[in-house]
Order: sequence, then structure tokens, then C-alpha cells
Amino acid sequence: MIEVPEGSLFGYGNLPYGVFSRPGEERRVGVRLGDSVVDVALLLDDEVFAAPTLNPFLAQGRARWDEVRARLRDLLRGDVPGEAVHPVGEVTLHLPFEVADYVDFYASEHHASNLGRLFRPDSEPLMPNWKHLPVGYHGRAGTVVVSGTDVVRPCGQRKAPDETAPTYGPSRRLDIEAELGFVVGTPSPLGGRIDVDSFADHVFGVVLVNDWSARDLQAWEYVPLGPHLGKSFATSISPWVVPLAALEAARVPLPGQDPEPLPYLRGREDWGLDIDLVVEWNGEEVSRPPYRTMYWSPAQMLAHLTVNGASARTGDLFASGTISGPEKSQRGAFIELTWGGREPVTVKGEQRTFLEDGDEVTISATAPGPDGGRISFGEVTGTIRPARD
Amino acid sequence: MIEVPEGSLFGYGNLPYGVFSRPGEERRVGVRLGDSVVDVALLLDDEVFAAPTLNPFLAQGRARWDEVRARLRDLLRGDVPGEAVHPVGEVTLHLPFEVADYVDFYASEHHASNLGRLFRPDSEPLMPNWKHLPVGYHGRAGTVVVSGTDVVRPCGQRKAPDETAPTYGPSRRLDIEAELGFVVGTPSPLGGRIDVDSFADHVFGVVLVNDWSARDLQAWEYVPLGPHLGKSFATSISPWVVPLAALEAARVPLPGQDPEPLPYLRGREDWGLDIDLVVEWNGEEVSRPPYRTMYWSPAQMLAHLTVNGASARTGDLFASGTISGPEKSQRGAFIELTWGGREPVTVKGEQRTFLEDGDEVTISATAPGPDGGRISFGEVTGTIRPARD
Repeated sequence: MIEVPEGSLFGYGNLPYGVFSRPGEERRVGVRLGDSVVDVALLLDDEVFAAPTLNPFLAQGRARWDEVRARLRDLLRGDVPGEAVHPVGEVTLHLPFEVADYVDFYASEHHASNLGRLFRPDSEPLMPNWKHLPVGYHGRAGTVVVSGTDVVRPCGQRKAPDETAPTYGPSRRLDIEAELGFVVGTPSPLGGRIDVDSFADHVFGVVLVNDWSARDLQAWEYVPLGPHLGKSFATSISPWVVPLAALEAARVPLPGQDPEPLPYLRGREDWGLDIDLVVEWNGEEVSRPPYRTMYWSPAQMLAHLTVNGASARTGDLFASGTISGPEKSQRGAFIELTWGGREPVTVKGEQRTFLEDGDEVTISATAPGPDGGRISFGEVTGTIRPARD
Repeated sequence: MIEVPEGSLFGYGNLPYGVFSRPGEERRVGVRLGDSVVDVALLLDDEVFAAPTLNPFLAQGRARWDEVRARLRDLLRGDVPGEAVHPVGEVTLHLPFEVADYVDFYASEHHASNLGRLFRPDSEPLMPNWKHLPVGYHGRAGTVVVSGTDVVRPCGQRKAPDETAPTYGPSRRLDIEAELGFVVGTPSPLGGRIDVDSFADHVFGVVLVNDWSARDLQAWEYVPLGPHLGKSFATSISPWVVPLAALEAARVPLPGQDPEPLPYLRGREDWGLDIDLVVEWNGEEVSRPPYRTMYWSPAQMLAHLTVNGASARTGDLFASGTISGPEKSQRGAFIELTWGGREPVTVKGEQRTFLEDGDEVTISATAPGPDGGRISFGEVTGTIRPARD
């Protein structure tokens, strides 16, 4: 029987999936229990888990996800062959799934209001559409990387308000965005749509996301077609995908929507999520964004995403956008936390605004677990490397 | 020897690649010559062309593309085994490559100015950044479809200026965008960048693109993060990828850039392209967009796309944005051609503004060929089907 440390946040109620490898061996699917990674292909004698990504399993759909989870919860309490169990510190964790399309939403009212004030100080902070639809845009799927991947400071064009022309160079306002990401398993056809109450039939699970953002590049480029190079250089995700099935106890009502959304965005089920994030900057906690404060639910995001007939594919990733609560200590981006760089925060005794080379940011999260206690999402971490010439 | 009709636009200088199948058989790579599709896997006895997409061949890089093209130009003038040759009317043409990331630019000054006047009548038509960088955004790769795929009218939220709240329903302002798309073969690593003069080492070829656009959905949703559902329901591309190598005679200088772009966007090579598009609405020609009038070159687009260290992948597709020339008869979107619907055009004797159910739009293009004469890009066509409940 696998040893699960007392109070582990990776107990039998969590069982997140990832992709791991050992030196000289191929990638395969693992499930985490305590401080161990269990080789699912070996344990279940099933080739679908001998793949280098979760995608083949994700494509099998909800009934199969439920069946495998029930089977793992059962088998993992018994005798597991030693060759299927590896200490998590002795394996390499990889990008857990091949990302099809990546969409990033903007679902926190506090974040959207803060950014509105910072980017457009002379206008209403929220655009007229914001409370009618979950605003979102497509990001770059090819630059979604796994936690631990270094982030090279991006270069590009930036123009300060007092400059007459843009200049080229490394970003001077490199930032993070602490988010959750939702991973689509079951696809939907072109011309179809996913009903707001069919969310759990299509979405397999949840990852942590750090949507690294170069605010100076973004501010100059984003009109009228939205963010592009300010975001596309890297988006980091956690190696563990927490199944929706592990989040039953975390489901809560949304804080409230006014005006009432159009019917296609009204669901019978609660998909607010009581998940607490923690942002650490060089090892010091600087923020605790509460996911339960988000205005739009992920079920509404997916319903909106497909209401025009856009198909969804296995491996689609859609993220919540920065999670910011009403308090300053709950803001999920440094541009908000330091109010555009004008109110530095103290990090390990230094006054800091945006990211410096060598800085490391780690986002982690926990939620109420299905068996009582709490479960962990692990973490997404990354270190800033200097810009290249 | 394969018969090539006198004056064919698919002569030995063109040789575009596609993916075809015959009834009951697997997809494989073909090259078009005259009115025939030649089975490349069979002709070259090479398994890389027995794939259901061009991606494996695209990934082999420029030296290999040149070698295969030279070999085909040679072999196709000799005796080609009959079983390798199929009349184009007897095969099914498929999406020619698996799309990795899809980026859409906005590189026509005439189009961007027209849309600025229509969407933001009280402001300067061009945003301050427009002449400094090729503005672009990510689109939905999963809804890129091959020519001939029906387009279901999208539903979504739209709000007319005189309405107080948005309503839900089928788009009432469904439009086209006539564009060229550039297909990346050779990838580039994360943290690297593609120099503006390395364009032809990375880009394999060119397709026609119709970026279907629901203008009412777009106008309501697009601030501040750019177009999303107004575009993501479908983007159609032509089945034939014309290799860059076939476009040597089409290369021309850009019309001129003022101010001079930053150094990373300055190239030694001309990548303006003298390609003439034709837009037909229900079989009647309504526009002739001239690609040579585009402000930004595709080499500049790719250099910009990767200057922040974003990786490029085999199968990445980046499109030019709507091609519109200075004349009304050269506008590549109906919102421009009919000036927001206020100046209808006559199509088959009817006054028309935006697309109606049953309408068919076909975009085709030709360019000077490498052996004299002209070459064709084939066409991208699609028919509008009614919205679903």
C-alpha cells in the first residue's frame, strides 16, 4: 500500500493526472497520490495511458473518466506493484496535454475594473459589454509550457505616453497573471454548441495558469485587436490536472450577476469554485486571490465560447483571466498589486514593482476536498531569464 | 505524359500541394498539374506523402521542399504511372495541413482605415500603433475548414447603437474577409525569433483565406480584448498550398512605409506580392482586391510574430487580414464594399448588403508564374446555411 502522509493535500480524494518520465524512458500518464506518482498504464494495464499526453484519455469522455477514477480510488488502497510507484522527486513532469486552442477570459470584475482604471484612466473602468458576456480572446497555444520552464524576458515595441515614437527592446513591465485553466476532454462539432449545464460532460479538469504579460508591449499593441505579443511569449501551466470530479465540495454559487445574463448563459448548476490561490514572489507570499469572487463561471465561459457554433476539441484550454478579489492583498497581477508600478511592494526586503531578471514566481492553490480536508493543485512556477540580443 | 491544357493556370511552374482521397481510400498528398491530381507518395515512393496532412513534409524544411519541387518538375514531364494520376473532379480535397496556431493580421491600410471609419466614426481611422507594427491577433485554429465546407450562420450577442441592452440571435451582418494565408513549415524554438530575411526558410507556401466575420457580434464584443466569437465560427482556406518557390515572379516592393519601421522589421528582400484576387458573390464578380497594395509584408508579419521569443510550429497559419485596394471595386469585405450596409451592391439583379442564407462566396486568385504566364491559387468557396435553434 502506498504511504500517504497524514494531512497530505494529494490524498485519495484528489488524484490529479499528469505526464511523467524517468531518465531514458518514454513519457506516460501518472496519477499523484501523496508524494508518489503512480504509473497508470502499468496499474490498469491500459495502453491509453502509455501515451505522451493525456489527450487520448481526455477524448474518451466523462463516463470513462468516472470509471477510471473509481477504479483508481479502489486499486490505490490495495497492493500496488512497486514498479508502478515512483517518488515525485525522481520523475520529470511534462506538459500534461497537447493544447489545441487556448482562450483566455477576463472573468474577474475586480481585475477588469482595476485594469480599466490603469489602461484607460479617463473612461469607465468596465466596458459596456462586460456584464453581458464573458469577454475573452484567443492566445497562443504553441507557447503554453509546463511549470518550471524558464521565461525569457520578451523584446518588442513599447511607447511610454510621453514618447513620440515607439522603441524596441526588452519589456520593462513584465508581469504575471494568476489564473485557473479548464481542460476540454469531450469535443463538440462545428455548428453545435455546449449548453451551460453540459459543462461537466466536456471539461475534464483544472490546471493552474500563469499568463505572463509584458504590460508595456500590451499597452502599445492592443488597440483595436486585443493583446498579442504582450502575452504570446509564454503561458505556464501546472503539471497536474485536477479532475472536476475532485472539486464537488468546492462548488459554490457565483457572487451574483446583475443584470441577469441572457438565457444561454443561465445554468441550473453552481459552477463558482471555492479555490484559494497563493502567489509567491521569490518565495515570499504577496497575494491570495480567491477564485470564489469571480463574476463569470467556467460553465458560462464554455457556453459562450461555443454559442456561435465554434467546435471544441480535446485539449482545448480556456483560462479564467486574472483572479483578483476586492482586497489589495487578493490581486492576481503585479500591475494591480503595485497600481501600475506606483505603489511598490516589499519582497524579501526590497521594493519591487515589475519582474526583474532572476525573479521566480510560484502560484499554488487548494480547495475543499471530496473526503473532507483539502486538496492541492500543486504549483506553477517559473524564473525570468534575461532578454536575448 | 500528363496532359496540361493550353494556358492552364496549373502548369509546371505552379505545382501546388494538397491532400486528397478517393472513395474508400485514405487521405494522401497530391500535387496539382493541369486538371489532374498526382499521387506524390506513389510517384516519389516516399511515405512522408502518404500522410493525411502536409505537416510531415512541411517539417522537413526548405532544402527538402526545393529538392522535391525540382524532382516533381522533372518527373512530371516524363511518363507518370497511370495509377498515380486522377482527374481533379474525381477526388475529394481535404484541409491540406493541420493548423497549429492561427494568427490574423490587419495589414491593408485601406481596409484598416475603412474599418476605423465604420467602427469608430468619431476617431482617427488608424490607431497610433498601426504604421509602427503589423497589428494582429490569434484566431481559432480548430475552426479553420477547407473550401466547400458549409458555414452555419452564427448566433450570439449583438447590440445596435440605439438599443439599451444586447439581444441574442443569429448574426444580421454576416460578412467575408478576402485574405492570403501563409503556412509555416520550419519551426523556430521558444525564446528564438525569425529574422525578417529568413522568411522563405520558414514559410512553405500560400493559401487563400476567407475569414468569415459576424460584424454585429464583433462590434459588441471586441473591446478591449479584440475579436472573438465574431470570427471564431469558421475560417475557410483553399485546398491548394502554392509553394513560395512558385511565386518568385510575383515578388514586388511594398508600396512604401512611412515612418520607416524599426530595424527588426527592415528586410533586404522584397516580399510584396503581385497577386490579384477576385471575389464572387453568388457567381457574380463584386471585387478585385490587389495584394500588391498591402502595407506590411508577410516577412514583416512573421518577424513581428516571433520577435518576443514566441516559437513557431509546423502548421502555423498567419493570414494577411482583409485585402482592400484604394478603389471601391477593390474592397475585400462587404462591410467596406457596401459602406456598413448603407450602399447596397447589385448581385444578380438584387440589392445586397450582408450575406443571406443560401449565399455562396468564392474567392480566387492568380499571379505571374515562374515560367511566364500566370498561375492560379484555385479557390476558396463556402455557402451560408441557416442558423440553428
